[in-house]
Amino acid sequence: MAGLNEIRAGEVAVEPPAATDAGLIFIGRISTPWASRLDCPRQGQLDGPVCRIEIFEPWVAALDGIESFERIEVLYWLDHSRRDLVRQSPGKDGNTRGTFALRSPVRPNPIGTAIVRLVRVEAGILSVRGLDCLDGTPLLDLKPDRSQFTPTAPPQAGDF
Amino acid sequence: MAGLNEIRAGEVAVEPPAATDAGLIFIGRISTPWASRLDCPRQGQLDGPVCRIEIFEPWVAALDGIESFERIEVLYWLDHSRRDLVRQSPGKDGNTRGTFALRSPVRPNPIGTAIVRLVRVEAGILSVRGLDCLDGTPLLDLKPDRSQFTPTAPPQAGDF
Repeated sequence: MAGLNEIRAGEVAVEPPAATDAGLIFIGRISTPWASRLDCPRQGQLDGPVCRIEIFEPWVAALDGIESFERIEVLYWLDHSRRDLVRQSPGKDGNTRGTFALRSPVRPNPIGTAIVRLVRVEAGILSVRGLDCLDGTPLLDLKPDRSQFTPTAPPQAGDF
Repeated sequence: MAGLNEIRAGEVAVEPPAATDAGLIFIGRISTPWASRLDCPRQGQLDGPVCRIEIFEPWVAALDGIESFERIEVLYWLDHSRRDLVRQSPGKDGNTRGTFALRSPVRPNPIGTAIVRLVRVEAGILSVRGLDCLDGTPLLDLKPDRSQFTPTAPPQAGDF
């Protein structure tokens, strides 16, 4: 695991403000085949291995209707990531780029987003394909993929 | 503004846990034409009005390279949303659905995600099209659209 959180040549760290502007609730937990960050895929694939998303109470009731979507957007908390880098060197070669021009897990608010294929839903557990995160990653949210979702609420002024 | 946070027929609220599992930093602020939630579009459109995203220090340096992407994923904090509904009635007609089967702003962690078209970047300000959020919404993250991004980091075991 050496080197997981070290700064590489050319990377720039800042002193970040305290993370107290808003608070998160972990609403579930993600199980994947990857026990170390050094094993995780760089990007999830919709034909990747089946992963398991467990929903905690009191949120299980919020799953009702999710089974009608083929693809789901998953938001999760990258709880092992440092949050202070503004420039990163993903290739470890000193060629750096700003954090917002990367999908690296290292970011001021380390929220991962993935589009996954829904395989099965049963009793508060989702089986999905397409994740790339570490085993045990905390879950923040699930939403229907925007391309499959039509708002059921009536239009408002801004829609016209 | 009456009724913005009331519970409608058939909706179900829970007692949510304290939101202390992790803390967020607001890294910027979004300006849009919509001063009330009752005016916001239900879904952003890539040909919608130009909106402005201001990045706060010390994060401006993290924008370097973002100008090479046509589409950006934006994460923001829906700071006026209640967080306790597990069933919602978007049509206000008593027909309810679980929160995770909706893209409503009301969710246990009210994080909005949008794919926007990048119009311009200058001095810590992005101009973009495709947002649907309230004027003044706090910014959480910016990432290249996953469909336009190729990891620059070398592959790992999970990629094979």
